[in-house]
Amino acid sequence: MQIALLLFDRFTALDAVGPYEMLSRAPGAETVFVAERTGAVRNDSGSLCLVAERTLADVPAPDVVIVPGGPGQSAQMENESLLGWLRAADATSTWTTSVCTGSLLLAAAGLLTGRRATTHWLAHDVLRTYGAEPTEERVVLDGKYVTAAGVSAGIDMGLTLLGEIAGDEHARSVQLLTEYDPQPPYDCGSPAKAPAAMVEEWRSRSRFILS
Amino acid sequence: MQIALLLFDRFTALDAVGPYEMLSRAPGAETVFVAERTGAVRNDSGSLCLVAERTLADVPAPDVVIVPGGPGQSAQMENESLLGWLRAADATSTWTTSVCTGSLLLAAAGLLTGRRATTHWLAHDVLRTYGAEPTEERVVLDGKYVTAAGVSAGIDMGLTLLGEIAGDEHARSVQLLTEYDPQPPYDCGSPAKAPAAMVEEWRSRSRFILS
Repeated sequence: MQIALLLFDRFTALDAVGPYEMLSRAPGAETVFVAERTGAVRNDSGSLCLVAERTLADVPAPDVVIVPGGPGQSAQMENESLLGWLRAADATSTWTTSVCTGSLLLAAAGLLTGRRATTHWLAHDVLRTYGAEPTEERVVLDGKYVTAAGVSAGIDMGLTLLGEIAGDEHARSVQLLTEYDPQPPYDCGSPAKAPAAMVEEWRSRSRFILS
Repeated sequence: MQIALLLFDRFTALDAVGPYEMLSRAPGAETVFVAERTGAVRNDSGSLCLVAERTLADVPAPDVVIVPGGPGQSAQMENESLLGWLRAADATSTWTTSVCTGSLLLAAAGLLTGRRATTHWLAHDVLRTYGAEPTEERVVLDGKYVTAAGVSAGIDMGLTLLGEIAGDEHARSVQLLTEYDPQPPYDCGSPAKAPAAMVEEWRSRSRFILS
């Protein structure tokens, strides 16, 4: 089973590494980081580089496609090289997935039209403009399309999908081995739980950073 | 504030990227991935490379030291170049931290002697043999030493430490922006919650992989 993680300039690292850490532990997984060009791809904050070891052309038909998000997503929304690869890979994939604003790229490629999906909480309206139906769930399955909410939700997406692919017992075993028993020190991880003023502040700021 | 993340061959990616994603969002943070040599450093499963952009010598006195774990930790337990850097960096650090079996490297460097600390649940006994006092908490603070349990616990460690460094309000804001409202699909993320047979199976296997 080939799992392709798409990288692009200014992606968010945890969006990619969260599901990677879960799904790369599927039996028989061959996990590959792909980008338009091979080499180091720099993240949103500029201080982390993951290496794309294969080009898009090298990996035309992965079984699982994982698209992270990040502020760099907006610069890719009309990149036909990348969107064309997504469409072609999706034509034969078993699962097409995203984390955070990665779903906007799937939607821009036309893959989420009329489908239930999610994205970063700040980007629900944008997702709707591309024809998807945003929901409030953290991980959304609609057929073979699995989308996760913002950044850290990719871990829950990865573990959920690992259960679908490898069975509940294997997924539970990976949960134990990665000691995924989260205990956040605060309870402020969604707009429903955060103070209204904090939510509003991020909504104001996001008008400048989300396309 | 300079934050140094130590990389070594066969580290576990989420151990590093979890706390990275939280702490790199501290105001004024300069986050650097360091290793003995600059360049790509390959993870435990072999399919992911993070780039070390600076050598240990380039970063002699970071404010925050973060040591991930992974099966590659065992090959570093007598690496005096790496252990010597940890000791020197610790001499002037504000915070010295680890995720998973990264604490075994701190302990091997002599930095956790007599201190309360944690590590991956499979490695508590090893941590004790290096002079630390293992505890069952997911994130352990003992003075300036902050250690996290296995793999995913680094996110909780990073957010906890972000609160100490930048204040609760900033940390809550980062929790909201990274949508860290975990909803694991299973409840099997610790040896206390997993079936006894699964725990025992991993204990058997770990005798071959942990030093």
